[in-house]
Amino acid sequence: MKVKDKHYRTIWLKPDDPSTVQVIDQKFLPHRFTVHDLRSSADAALAISDMTVRGAPLIGATAAWGLYLAALEARTSDRQLSFIERAADDFRQTRPTAVNLHWAIARVLSVVRQATDSQRRVEAARREAQAICDEDVEICRNIARHGFSLIENIARVKPHEPVNVLTHCNAGWLAAIDWGTATAPIYLAQEKKVPVHVWIDETRPRNQGAYLTAWELAQHGIPHTVIVDNAGGHLMQRGQVDICITGTDRTTCTGDVANKIGTYLKALAAYDNHIPFYVALPSTSIDWSIDDGIAEIPIEERGPEEVSYVRGLDDEQLRKVRIITEGTPIRNYGFDVTPARLVTGLITERGICEASREALATLFDDLARYSQ
Amino acid sequence: MKVKDKHYRTIWLKPDDPSTVQVIDQKFLPHRFTVHDLRSSADAALAISDMTVRGAPLIGATAAWGLYLAALEARTSDRQLSFIERAADDFRQTRPTAVNLHWAIARVLSVVRQATDSQRRVEAARREAQAICDEDVEICRNIARHGFSLIENIARVKPHEPVNVLTHCNAGWLAAIDWGTATAPIYLAQEKKVPVHVWIDETRPRNQGAYLTAWELAQHGIPHTVIVDNAGGHLMQRGQVDICITGTDRTTCTGDVANKIGTYLKALAAYDNHIPFYVALPSTSIDWSIDDGIAEIPIEERGPEEVSYVRGLDDEQLRKVRIITEGTPIRNYGFDVTPARLVTGLITERGICEASREALATLFDDLARYSQ
Repeated sequence: MKVKDKHYRTIWLKPDDPSTVQVIDQKFLPHRFTVHDLRSSADAALAISDMTVRGAPLIGATAAWGLYLAALEARTSDRQLSFIERAADDFRQTRPTAVNLHWAIARVLSVVRQATDSQRRVEAARREAQAICDEDVEICRNIARHGFSLIENIARVKPHEPVNVLTHCNAGWLAAIDWGTATAPIYLAQEKKVPVHVWIDETRPRNQGAYLTAWELAQHGIPHTVIVDNAGGHLMQRGQVDICITGTDRTTCTGDVANKIGTYLKALAAYDNHIPFYVALPSTSIDWSIDDGIAEIPIEERGPEEVSYVRGLDDEQLRKVRIITEGTPIRNYGFDVTPARLVTGLITERGICEASREALATLFDDLARYSQ
Repeated sequence: MKVKDKHYRTIWLKPDDPSTVQVIDQKFLPHRFTVHDLRSSADAALAISDMTVRGAPLIGATAAWGLYLAALEARTSDRQLSFIERAADDFRQTRPTAVNLHWAIARVLSVVRQATDSQRRVEAARREAQAICDEDVEICRNIARHGFSLIENIARVKPHEPVNVLTHCNAGWLAAIDWGTATAPIYLAQEKKVPVHVWIDETRPRNQGAYLTAWELAQHGIPHTVIVDNAGGHLMQRGQVDICITGTDRTTCTGDVANKIGTYLKALAAYDNHIPFYVALPSTSIDWSIDDGIAEIPIEERGPEEVSYVRGLDDEQLRKVRIITEGTPIRNYGFDVTPARLVTGLITERGICEASREALATLFDDLARYSQ
């Protein structure tokens, strides 16, 4: 997508320097736009754990490129493969909830293990990481197409007003490689000149809605309004939301959706007000091995400083201020699980389906079988 | 209640200076504890609208003392009564949602109108403002007693663990005169040595939970944990909340509850997880003239700067930082309405009752009839 009218992806191999992977540093957006170099697999692992990059698809892609960097780092060692495998173990520890991470690691390891020498391992990892990125873009384009049909249908019944979409956190192009998941149908609506307006949940504690989604949509001139996380239920009660679309970090094969903490509350409000609640996801976010999201999906708990400190501008200076008194006990859960019963449907690259085992198994017959 | 072991109320007539009313300035808590002087009715109105004081009972009490100050200001004028009545009009404009404001103003105006001369008007207003405060303390003590029975019942079935209460915003003693509404049963549980632990919603955008409720409970040594507003649903899904107790700014005679924005989302989650959701309120927060909370209670919309700026400490310096990019559209609704069907019960000074017209009319037979 665009940053100041220039096209970007979120991650790419540096032109003319195949030993460096570059990412958009998301830690200081919207206040500062910077590109960050990853020169080793350790750099890539840190970029995931400190949230220089975030979002399930992008976490997977970064781990894939990280394994390429690992292959490169150990290319003259006779223990290259075990170095790559240890790096893979490190990547698996970075973020526990997103499942794309495991999928991307498995995919790169598989081709690396089949390669017969050191240089071929480097090449295989590079090709696979690039393919994961290119395929993700294609997947998001298809999510755009399918999700757009929902927006179009709403627009038909209220032709002179924008379609009001509510989203939580950032499931935008910054969370993927390009287009995004939840935002993909919104970007396509804009291309097709169907008027949309997006309510963006601030998304405490890291404010990815206010910081990232608002920034993305502003770069594309899409009308939007930031609200605190508390406000969505009120808007839905007053008929100011036509559809909710979020992303997911992991969706079970039964349709339970793990996503940014607070998603469950919005799904409850949507259900209570008969507003459709959709989750946009690449099939790579589906965990075919888990039935019960609430009991089985590991929920990451992050440090209290994400809650007690806030970053902002004071006189053009970026500052971090403490908002909660030192010593106050804080718990900081990163995700929650929305049970399938509250999800109207899943917008995938193959089409829209019910959040149910049967519907997912039918649409992804090949993947569902493969994983058993 | 206590601040550094010294007893305070939230509002009082300054000893040895009957022309000054003093309040705890809540704008800079927990970072700074200061007492603020109100020397005129305009001071009092500003203290309400800029949220130096907040919380439905305290807003009412401040308006009552404000009318006393108005009586005092105009005591040598032959238009004293109309000056007081104009001040009453100003107070009514300060905050639209809390109903205690209207009740307290009506009460003071009624005694002032009956007084036969200027000095008697001053005295009547003073007595009435003081009575409103003293009665509120008594009401909150009774709320404590009734609400404590709920906590005690839970403690009986889990004797070796604390009872986990979740609360939203600040319905503590800072929102009332003393004891608070939602916190009153918690303070009493501590007195009675029944172990409690309180999950405190941060309560964006003004963070009254993180700033005020956490501060209050810390002053009394009550175990608590601050969470972001997004987290409550997750905690309830995982069995980490035994009971929710909130306050209210206005409750209809049918039991619909207007309270700080985001309350509705927590009530939905409590309902979905079979967790009791109680609202603690003095009968002065009941609006006997309104049937349908969602359609009829006016919801205050406040300025966007409450969302886009955050106040905190940087190196012991209190600073305000901008967290949302300039020009980003923001909407800031102060309250939402939780329909009666999601409320397990109302904890009032006369006992606990269902959130229904029948139950309220039975418990408050005199008030319900009086208002028709």
